[in-house]
Amino acid sequence: MLEAVFPGSFDPPTNGHLNLIERSAHIFDILHVVISVNTQKVNTFTPEERFSMLSELLKPYSNVKLHIWDRLTVDFCEEHQVKVIVRGVRPISDFGYEFELAMTNKGLNPGIEVLFMPTDPKYLVLRASAIREIVQLGGDITAMVPPLVAEALRKRFNVSG
Amino acid sequence: MLEAVFPGSFDPPTNGHLNLIERSAHIFDILHVVISVNTQKVNTFTPEERFSMLSELLKPYSNVKLHIWDRLTVDFCEEHQVKVIVRGVRPISDFGYEFELAMTNKGLNPGIEVLFMPTDPKYLVLRASAIREIVQLGGDITAMVPPLVAEALRKRFNVSG
Amino acid sequence: MLEAVFPGSFDPPTNGHLNLIERSAHIFDILHVVISVNTQKVNTFTPEERFSMLSELLKPYSNVKLHIWDRLTVDFCEEHQVKVIVRGVRPISDFGYEFELAMTNKGLNPGIEVLFMPTDPKYLVLRASAIREIVQLGGDITAMVPPLVAEALRKRFNVSG
Amino acid sequence: MLEAVFPGSFDPPTNGHLNLIERSAHIFDILHVVISVNTQKVNTFTPEERFSMLSELLKPYSNVKLHIWDRLTVDFCEEHQVKVIVRGVRPISDFGYEFELAMTNKGLNPGIEVLFMPTDPKYLVLRASAIREIVQLGGDITAMVPPLVAEALRKRFNVSG
Amino acid sequence: MLEAVFPGSFDPPTNGHLNLIERSAHIFDILHVVISVNTQKVNTFTPEERFSMLSELLKPYSNVKLHIWDRLTVDFCEEHQVKVIVRGVRPISDFGYEFELAMTNKGLNPGIEVLFMPTDPKYLVLRASAIREIVQLGGDITAMVPPLVAEALRKRFNVSG
Amino acid sequence: MLEAVFPGSFDPPTNGHLNLIERSAHIFDILHVVISVNTQKVNTFTPEERFSMLSELLKPYSNVKLHIWDRLTVDFCEEHQVKVIVRGVRPISDFGYEFELAMTNKGLNPGIEVLFMPTDPKYLVLRASAIREIVQLGGDITAMVPPLVAEALRKRFNVSG
Repeated sequence: MLEAVFPGSFDPPTNGHLNLIERSAHIFDILHVVISVNTQKVNTFTPEERFSMLSELLKPYSNVKLHIWDRLTVDFCEEHQVKVIVRGVRPISDFGYEFELAMTNKGLNPGIEVLFMPTDPKYLVLRASAIREIVQLGGDITAMVPPLVAEALRKRFNVSG
Repeated sequence: MLEAVFPGSFDPPTNGHLNLIERSAHIFDILHVVISVNTQKVNTFTPEERFSMLSELLKPYSNVKLHIWDRLTVDFCEEHQVKVIVRGVRPISDFGYEFELAMTNKGLNPGIEVLFMPTDPKYLVLRASAIREIVQLGGDITAMVPPLVAEALRKRFNVSG
Repeated sequence: MLEAVFPGSFDPPTNGHLNLIERSAHIFDILHVVISVNTQKVNTFTPEERFSMLSELLKPYSNVKLHIWDRLTVDFCEEHQVKVIVRGVRPISDFGYEFELAMTNKGLNPGIEVLFMPTDPKYLVLRASAIREIVQLGGDITAMVPPLVAEALRKRFNVSG
Repeated sequence: MLEAVFPGSFDPPTNGHLNLIERSAHIFDILHVVISVNTQKVNTFTPEERFSMLSELLKPYSNVKLHIWDRLTVDFCEEHQVKVIVRGVRPISDFGYEFELAMTNKGLNPGIEVLFMPTDPKYLVLRASAIREIVQLGGDITAMVPPLVAEALRKRFNVSG
Repeated sequence: MLEAVFPGSFDPPTNGHLNLIERSAHIFDILHVVISVNTQKVNTFTPEERFSMLSELLKPYSNVKLHIWDRLTVDFCEEHQVKVIVRGVRPISDFGYEFELAMTNKGLNPGIEVLFMPTDPKYLVLRASAIREIVQLGGDITAMVPPLVAEALRKRFNVSG
Repeated sequence: MLEAVFPGSFDPPTNGHLNLIERSAHIFDILHVVISVNTQKVNTFTPEERFSMLSELLKPYSNVKLHIWDRLTVDFCEEHQVKVIVRGVRPISDFGYEFELAMTNKGLNPGIEVLFMPTDPKYLVLRASAIREIVQLGGDITAMVPPLVAEALRKRFNVSG
C-alpha cells in the first residue's frame, strides 16, 4: 500500500490545489493533505479555517486524510511512515526552489522521495498570493477558487461579490 | 488606431523604463503609461511625485498619456478600451513571473493581450530596487537614471551627489 | 496603420500557430504570415505545400497576408516597411533562444521591434517536431492540428488515421 | 498495487539511471524499465545489447521488469494498464523539455500521470551523450558507469581502458 | 599576484560557503572574505558574531583575510585594489540574480570582473535561510554547518541539539 | 603565477570571444586560448585556418598563448599544469549546459576549477552559429566579427560583402 503526503499552505485552497489532490488521490492508496503552519507568516485564514474549507472540499475523495502540522514535513513522514511527498511544479517559477527543497528534505531523511507532478496548464495562474491580490482589488475570482473559498475571501477582505 | 498600456511602479523611473516607453511610443498610436499604486508596499516616492517626474521626462513624446491607477491593470484597459499591455522582460529573472502575470490577466479578460518587449541589454542592470540600494550606499547612479531622478533620490535619502 | 510579421517554418502548421495568428490578427491592422524557407533543413512539407495548407486555414482572417521568404526576416520587414515582428514564447524552453534571436535582429536593424506573445497554455505541447514524431509512431493528433493538416501528415508518413 | 514505467534510451545505462531505478523500485510495487527504440537516431548499442546489459545490472531488483518498446510510451502504459510514468529531472537543462513531454503525454492519454524524480546531485553530470564523448577522447569513465558498461563502451569505440 | 574578494552575508556561514572559500583560496594568491553589513535586514547574528565564527573557521587558510564592510562591494575592491569578485552560483535559482548583480557592478566599475564558481552539488541545499528555518523547526543541521555554527544557531533560537 | 585556459571552437572567432579573451588576459598572468578540435562536427574553417585568424587577432595580448587541441580540456590542463578554465556564460541559454560541463570536468579532475565569466550584454547575440547563418542569408555581420573574419566568412560562403 503506497501512501503519499501533499503539503502546502492552502491560504486559500485553489482550483489548482484541488486538481493536484484529485490526480494524486487517483494514483496513491492514501493521500495525506497536510496544512503546514508557519507562525512567522501573516496568514489570511487561520489553519483551522483552512482545515474547515478543505475538509468540505475533499469530501468526495475517500482515500484523502487531512492534517494540520507545525513541524518539518519530513517529521510528518517519519511519524506516519510515509515515504513519498508530492509537490506540484509549474514551468520556470517553481522548479529551482522545489529542486532545492527536495534536496534539503533528502538531506534530512534520505529514505523519503519527493516526486514532482506537473501543474495542469489550465491552472498555471492560480498562485494563492495572486488570488489574494486580485480579490482585494475587486477582480473576479470565480474561475480560480471553489465557490465556498471565493465567498470566504470576499468576506475576509470586505469585498462585495 | 492601436493603443497600448505600459504599467509599472516607476519608484523611481529608470533609463530602462524610458527606453521601453520610447520604443513602445514609436510602435503604437497612443501609449498609456500607468503608475500602479500599491498601498501595501512602502514606497520611496509618492504616486504624485512619480507622476511629476514622469510628466517632465515624457514631454518629448506627444502620443504618451500618463495616469495614476489604484485598481487592476485589466480594469484600466476595459475602461479605456485598450487591448494591448506592454511589459519589458529581461532574460531569466522576469520571464516566469511575467508569463504567469500575463496568464492571470488573460484569465480576468481574455480579450486583452500582453506583449513582451525584450529589455535592451544596455539596461539589464537597471532594476529600481538595485538603484535605490546603490544610492543609499553612496554609489554613483548618474548613468542609470535621468538627472532629475538622481537628484530626487539623493535628496530623499540624504546622500550628497 | 500598424503592420506586423509572424514568421515561422509551419512544418506543419499547428493549432498553436493558428491561435497566435488569430490573436495577432485581432491586434494589428495587417498581419504578414511569413513561411521561412531553410534549404539546409530536411522538411516534411515543401514551402508550397505549407503555403497551400495555410492559405486554406487563414481564409477567415481578412487582414492576414501569406508569404514564402528565403532571406532574413529583417529583410522582409525592410522591404515591406514593417516595424514589428511577433513571436510566440512558451515558458522556459523558448525564451533564451527567442531573446537572443530578438537581439540579433535588433543588431541587424535597430528600428524593428520583436514583441513576444505568450503561448496559450492549452497549446504548450504543440511543438511541430513532437507532432511529426507522434504521427510516425501512430499516435492520435486530431486535437493538435487542423483536420486538413492531420490528413496531409498521415499521407506523408503513410500512416492510417 | 501501484506500477510505474521508467522509459529511456539507456545508450548506455549510467550510474544515474541505476540510481533512479533503485529509488523508483523502492517506492512502486512493480517498475517497468522500458528501452525506447528510436530507429531515426544512430545508436552506440543495439536495443538487444542494452537489454542484455540492463538485465545483468537490474538482477538485484526483484520487482523490476525489463522491456524493449518501439511505439509511444503511453501505448505501453495502456497495454500494460500502468498509470504512472517516472522521469528523472536535473535542474535547468531537462525541466522545460520534460514539462512539455509530460503535457504531450497527457494530451495523448489524460489518465496517465508523469511524475518527476529529482536527479541525485551526485549524478548531475552523467548525461549519456557526454559519457560517449569522454570515452572516445580517452577520458576515465569508471566513476560514471558500471564496470560492464565501461568495458562495452571501450570495446565499441576501440579505446584501451 | 592575483587577489580576489568573496563577499556574502554569512548569516550563518555554511559548509557551502566554506567549500567555495577553500576552492577560491586554492586558486588566488590572496582571498578577501568580506562580511557585507546590511542594516535594513533583520539578522540572526551580528556582523561581529559572524566575524568571530568565520575567523575561527578560516584559521586553516593562511592566504584568507577577513573583513566587515558596510558599503558597496566595488568600493571595497577599489580601496584594496582588487579586480576580481568571486560568487558561488547554483543551477537555476541564483543565476539570473547573479548575472544582473555582476552587470550592476560592471556599471559601477568596469575594471572589476565578477567570476562565477559553480556550487559543488553536495552543497546545493545549504541556503542560509533554509538552515535557519530547519533549526527553528527542530531539524538536524549537523551535516549542513560546522559544529560551532550549529551550536550558535541552537543557542540563538533556544533549540536543544 | 596564475594561468588559465579559455577553450572553444572559434568557428569563427567573434567579437564576443575577443571580449572574453581580453578581459581574462587582464586578470590572469598567462591565458591559454585552446582551439578544440571536434572531428565529428562539420566545420566552416579548419583548425589551422582558425589558428591563423586568432593568432593575427591576439597579437596585442602578450600574455596569451594559442593552441590546437584534440583531446579533453582537462587533459590540456593536466599536461600544462593549469588549474583554472574560463568559460563565458550568457543569461539562460548557456548556464545549464555550462554547469553540467563544469561538473563533468570536476568529475574527471577535481583539482581543476571552472570559472564562469558573464558575457558582456553588448555581445549577447554573437553566437557563432547565428553568425554563420546570417552571412549565408546575405546579412551584414561587420559589427559582429573582426574585419578579417568577416572577409574569410564571405569568401567561404561565396557571399559578396
